[in-house]
Amino acid sequence: MSRQSTRTTDSKKMNSELFTLTYGALVTQLCKDYENDEEVNKQLDKMGYNIGVRLIEDFLARSSVGRCQDFRETADVIAKVAFKTYLGVTPSVTNWSPAGDEFSLMLESNPLVDFVELPDNHSALVYSNLLCGVLRGALEMVQMAVDVRFVQDTLRGDSMTEIRMKFIKRIEENLPAGDE
Amino acid sequence: MSRQSTRTTDSKKMNSELFTLTYGALVTQLCKDYENDEEVNKQLDKMGYNIGVRLIEDFLARSSVGRCQDFRETADVIAKVAFKTYLGVTPSVTNWSPAGDEFSLMLESNPLVDFVELPDNHSALVYSNLLCGVLRGALEMVQMAVDVRFVQDTLRGDSMTEIRMKFIKRIEENLPAGDE
Repeated sequence: MSRQSTRTTDSKKMNSELFTLTYGALVTQLCKDYENDEEVNKQLDKMGYNIGVRLIEDFLARSSVGRCQDFRETADVIAKVAFKTYLGVTPSVTNWSPAGDEFSLMLESNPLVDFVELPDNHSALVYSNLLCGVLRGALEMVQMAVDVRFVQDTLRGDSMTEIRMKFIKRIEENLPAGDE
Repeated sequence: MSRQSTRTTDSKKMNSELFTLTYGALVTQLCKDYENDEEVNKQLDKMGYNIGVRLIEDFLARSSVGRCQDFRETADVIAKVAFKTYLGVTPSVTNWSPAGDEFSLMLESNPLVDFVELPDNHSALVYSNLLCGVLRGALEMVQMAVDVRFVQDTLRGDSMTEIRMKFIKRIEENLPAGDE
């Protein structure tokens, strides 16, 4: 679906449950469409990427957040503004690497999995992998190449959900970017 | 994905944009999967139905709305409580049939279509058809069989989005119901 040039500026606040169940329908559909969990994870990441490259514009317009000075500031903006705005939760930022190029977003509660239990035959499914793609796509639009992946997941029995983010490089402004 | 027996009771309020874009990814995937728009419309309605039969429980627990006395009260609850809660918008209830068994939900703004333009080759696509399924599924769980369909859609150039709801019958409590 292509993007409209005119936008509504008013934002709608909604409870997360319809989103959660709709996301579940999307993952279920992909599990039907693709042969294995790895392929589904890849598709979710790709869809998320395409969402992220669009969502960043709304985010920048809405939040009036300026260019981040460093990766630490980026981490804070992601946790306290972006997650809060679009998912209604605020992860904590922890486990910084000594070099300051890696951190974790720890989610006590992940709205995407509120009604979900992974069936036994989907043990390799990274159910919420769309979020990794969203973060990757959105940051690419502000010239940051990052690696994003789940390292803990309450759906797999971990006590927290942990998303690990690693800074790779700053992207030159004149490179083309867009849908994958 | 199956349902957890334990539930989180705290609700997350979120902006609609991530939901909107994720819904777009779902519709796009279905357009890849199915041969024609009619089939996509049917799938969206079916997915919505399965979402509705789950969402109603959250809705009843959250809203402490009791059994509606008549279809007019049902219409008001849908517009003022359900749409407001899960989509952040409040449609107006209009165009009652003389018999009081049909009305329209008029949406000035439909959050599902905020970033969307229908491509020319999808002229028969009822993009937001998931909502019809959600309403049908949710109402079936409270023993009301209804017919729900879009009669106007801003995506097709109409000035408003209009969802028409028709009461069919009261369902006996002892009928089994569930996933379609």
